[in-house]
Amino acid sequence: MDGEWSTQASRIIYEGLILNLRLDEVRLPTGKIALREIVEHRPAVAMLPVRQDGAVLLIRQYRDAIRKEILEIPAGILNTGESPLEAARRELQEEIGYDAGTLEEWGSFFTSPGFSDEKVTLFFATDLVESRLEPDDDEFIHVVPVKREDIPVLLASGRVEDAKTVAALAWYLAKR
Amino acid sequence: MDGEWSTQASRIIYEGLILNLRLDEVRLPTGKIALREIVEHRPAVAMLPVRQDGAVLLIRQYRDAIRKEILEIPAGILNTGESPLEAARRELQEEIGYDAGTLEEWGSFFTSPGFSDEKVTLFFATDLVESRLEPDDDEFIHVVPVKREDIPVLLASGRVEDAKTVAALAWYLAKR
Repeated sequence: MDGEWSTQASRIIYEGLILNLRLDEVRLPTGKIALREIVEHRPAVAMLPVRQDGAVLLIRQYRDAIRKEILEIPAGILNTGESPLEAARRELQEEIGYDAGTLEEWGSFFTSPGFSDEKVTLFFATDLVESRLEPDDDEFIHVVPVKREDIPVLLASGRVEDAKTVAALAWYLAKR
Repeated sequence: MDGEWSTQASRIIYEGLILNLRLDEVRLPTGKIALREIVEHRPAVAMLPVRQDGAVLLIRQYRDAIRKEILEIPAGILNTGESPLEAARRELQEEIGYDAGTLEEWGSFFTSPGFSDEKVTLFFATDLVESRLEPDDDEFIHVVPVKREDIPVLLASGRVEDAKTVAALAWYLAKR
C-alpha cells in the first residue's frame, strides 16, 4: 500500500506552545478523500530509573488533561536544540533529584499514532547519583519507589494508568 | 497536592470528528496561573490477539499523523453507545478477520496524559474464530503474524514504534 497514500491539502489551525493542530485531506488508495485531525507535538523522553537496591522510582503528579494525579515514570519534552540524552539527564535531575551514570536507550515510540506525531524515547537509567536541578515552576512531584517484586501486582492492579509507564515496567520485567 | 490545583477557565477552540482542542487556565498550588493545551479524544480499545499456535497477530497500516506505515496491535475508537468489549470484538473482525471467544481485560491507560485524555482499554484476545466484518472504507490493513519466541528480538530491534503495542507485547512476555 506504500506510495498510494498522499496528503492533498494540509492546514495548521492552531499553533501553540507544546502542540499544533493540523487538518489534512488525505487521498486514500481508492482515490477517496478523507479528513484527518492531527496533533503535531514536540518530541519527548521518558526514563525508567532503577536504584542500586532494584527499586524503580515512579512519580505522582497532577495532569490537567485528565484532572487528577497519576503514577508515571519521569518524562518531559525536549528543549530546543537538546538531544534526547541531554533531556533525559535534565529531567531526571528536575523530577527525582538524581543524575544517571548510565542511560541505556531502549527504543522510541509514538504515543498515539492515530492522531499525533508525539514520539517518546525511552531510557533505562541506572548508577543514580544525587543531583538536583530546580524543577519547572509548574511541576509538583512526589517520588514513589516501587520494589521490583511488587511491579507485577502493581501492573495487574490497574493503578498504572499511563501507557509509557506500563510499557517501561512490563519491558523491565520481560527483559530480566 | 490534591485539591490545590484548579481549572480557572476553559475554552474549546476546535470541535472535530475524533478530537477537540481545549485551552485551560490552571491555578497551580503556588497561586500562579499556567496555560494548558489539551486534546480531548474519544476513548479507544486495543487488542493483543493470540492464535492457538501462540503467534501474535499484528497489523501494518498507514498513519497520516506520521506519514508512514507502522506495526501495531489492532485498535480503534469506540462508536457512540458501544462498550469497550463490544468495540474490541467489532475491531478484531474488521481489522484482522477474527472474532475472539475469550477477551480478557488487562487494563486501561492514557496514551499521553501530558496533553490528552485519550484512554485505551487493552484486551488479551484468544480462542479466535474466523469472522470478517467489512472494514471502514478508509482502512487498508496487512496482518503480520509474529511467533512468541520472536517478540523479544522484535522489541529490541526498534521496529515496534507504537506505545500501546510495546506495552502489550512486553506485558505478554512478562506475564508468562
